[in-house]
Amino acid sequence: MRSVAGWLLHGFLRAVGEPAIRVDLWNGDTVYVADGEPVARVCIHDPWTLLRFFYQPEVTFGEAYSDGRLDVDGDLVRLLEAVYSVSVNPRVDRLFFRERSTRSNTLRGSRANIHAHYDLGNDFYRLWLDQRMLYTGAYFPTPDVSLDEAQLAKMDHVCRKVALRAGERVVEAGCGWGALALHMAHRYGVTVRAFNISHEQIVYAREQAQRQGLADRVEFVEDDYRNVSGQYDAFVSVGMLEHVGLDHYRELGRVIDRCLPAHGRGLLHSIGRNRPMHLNAWVEKHIFPGARPPTLTQMMEILEPYNFSVLDAENLRLHYAKTAAEWLARFERSVDQVRAMFDERFVRAWRLYLAGTTTAFKTGLLQLFQVTFARAQHNAIPWNRAYLYE
Amino acid sequence: MRSVAGWLLHGFLRAVGEPAIRVDLWNGDTVYVADGEPVARVCIHDPWTLLRFFYQPEVTFGEAYSDGRLDVDGDLVRLLEAVYSVSVNPRVDRLFFRERSTRSNTLRGSRANIHAHYDLGNDFYRLWLDQRMLYTGAYFPTPDVSLDEAQLAKMDHVCRKVALRAGERVVEAGCGWGALALHMAHRYGVTVRAFNISHEQIVYAREQAQRQGLADRVEFVEDDYRNVSGQYDAFVSVGMLEHVGLDHYRELGRVIDRCLPAHGRGLLHSIGRNRPMHLNAWVEKHIFPGARPPTLTQMMEILEPYNFSVLDAENLRLHYAKTAAEWLARFERSVDQVRAMFDERFVRAWRLYLAGTTTAFKTGLLQLFQVTFARAQHNAIPWNRAYLYE
Repeated sequence: MRSVAGWLLHGFLRAVGEPAIRVDLWNGDTVYVADGEPVARVCIHDPWTLLRFFYQPEVTFGEAYSDGRLDVDGDLVRLLEAVYSVSVNPRVDRLFFRERSTRSNTLRGSRANIHAHYDLGNDFYRLWLDQRMLYTGAYFPTPDVSLDEAQLAKMDHVCRKVALRAGERVVEAGCGWGALALHMAHRYGVTVRAFNISHEQIVYAREQAQRQGLADRVEFVEDDYRNVSGQYDAFVSVGMLEHVGLDHYRELGRVIDRCLPAHGRGLLHSIGRNRPMHLNAWVEKHIFPGARPPTLTQMMEILEPYNFSVLDAENLRLHYAKTAAEWLARFERSVDQVRAMFDERFVRAWRLYLAGTTTAFKTGLLQLFQVTFARAQHNAIPWNRAYLYE
Repeated sequence: MRSVAGWLLHGFLRAVGEPAIRVDLWNGDTVYVADGEPVARVCIHDPWTLLRFFYQPEVTFGEAYSDGRLDVDGDLVRLLEAVYSVSVNPRVDRLFFRERSTRSNTLRGSRANIHAHYDLGNDFYRLWLDQRMLYTGAYFPTPDVSLDEAQLAKMDHVCRKVALRAGERVVEAGCGWGALALHMAHRYGVTVRAFNISHEQIVYAREQAQRQGLADRVEFVEDDYRNVSGQYDAFVSVGMLEHVGLDHYRELGRVIDRCLPAHGRGLLHSIGRNRPMHLNAWVEKHIFPGARPPTLTQMMEILEPYNFSVLDAENLRLHYAKTAAEWLARFERSVDQVRAMFDERFVRAWRLYLAGTTTAFKTGLLQLFQVTFARAQHNAIPWNRAYLYE
């Protein structure tokens, strides 16, 4: 005999598209609505969690998993894939990607949003990022190269796309721990001003510049992209746009327009969407406050008002899926150290976030767009893209 | 002593950004407002033409040039470049790109619009297009290859972008004289259904299919893209979107969505804009009724509602500039034959159109976008773009 809770869950799973997941309840009930074998098993340990799940599914799964009120038996990525691959269903999208009222990305709001994630401690990120500390999707020239090589290849891909020449000046908006800025200066002979509002990251980046003898050519500025001044031959931003917020795209466009002379080129690298959609509500609440991945159309709101020409847009979605899978594997290898730094709740939340990121890129819920642009009348642009692959 | 007409023209040329063009009037007045040497000289033969020019500049230059009421001494492309390169000035844009009330692109309107241009006679187009009769921007792997080679390379570039495999089915919307459809079948072993509403073109394409022994694998259908039925592995449209009209993008999206299964890919190749803008009013009136080049944002209106992932967008603007320059040179070499087929007015109008096209691509007023897309959950997409350049 199935309990009322079991019947309710049964109806819910059918309504959201019959994911191949078995759910075991605290009372011994087992619910499975799909055909074939389940890919994983979810155990819900108390009725309150199930009740909350019906009421607020968008954050409850993540919060209950983090708190241990819900467990997963089997591979977390495969479990999430089973859910996301039925979520072409707009009903599921609406459940998990509802808008949350968030702290806005004003100068002050952005600082708080960025602090919450990027200032968790460099020692923590060092445990599972590549050796150069890049925290954006890598580029794997072939699927078998290592994460370190792929992050190096990503930096070269970006530098070649904006066709850097020795002696040029580059501005970078949102520079993370500084790897790209240092790479551009070291390998391409340019000078760089790199902006970031994460204090921990800027401190680390400045140390690296000193250590690598590049402090005279790379200036790390602890300030907001809105305060970028001066003129540069190229504008580069890798993985910042997700944090800018749609309301501020015009402002970002104005900054880029102000920075670039007639021969100026630029590149925007950002997680994106096929359709306008909020970030997963749990991720937005617990991992990336204020973040929002744009569609290509939304990215155009930055460039179109200033008559920039898009020269190239590349979608590296599957490269990000591989990057995130690699991060997750490294995270698991260091999980005891993470637990010692924080607690079990943090471990579970970050495991879920990294698994969810992997899954979202794998199932096409997230995209990774690299958009290269130039002034409309600038004709000294690369003739074609063959040189990127030589 | 300068005449009133001369003073008015002087003010006009200063207001639109001081192009380096000398204008000689019927009364002996000479007006030049820029610094340095003029790149070309315009002779206006009567006061009525000048008056009409002030009143309706967007169509008057073209009409007066076609009628011989205005002559150009010097290189037409360089003259237009001088005007277009000051036209980053929005005032100039507004003058030359005003909206005209045009025949809309309903099923019937489209037929009339397409007939007006593409049914001018295959013998005419044969005079100045490449040997395979492609009337869309070519792709020059290196700037020194011939137009014939570049059109061949363009077809291969398109076929590789959608990653055709032998035995697949392809639908082509707007197939011109059929070269791409025949190439796909011949070189990539696919079967093709190719749609076009230009009667002259379809007749020619069917003849070619017979002659090349491909009639069993390439079906040319004289019908509108809106009537495409069936399912296909790939959807390809090269140079049709300019004629679809913004109001019909949703419909085109619906057609593509209906055509493509879960592994479906597609490519849209279209003349485009950086910012929303009408076609030059004279071109719209006399050359391409109903046409409108879209921005990338507008192109996304086709793909976004159906959750397609943009995999790649490439801007081949300078390749189109070179293509159009090549067409103009070939046109001039056959100008006596064109005059014998039509008349001097036609010759002058088409000279201006081809020169204007060259210039618009050279100065960044027009773009050429190739957008490749796939279903969001389709993961058997090319790992990266290196294979396009092998």
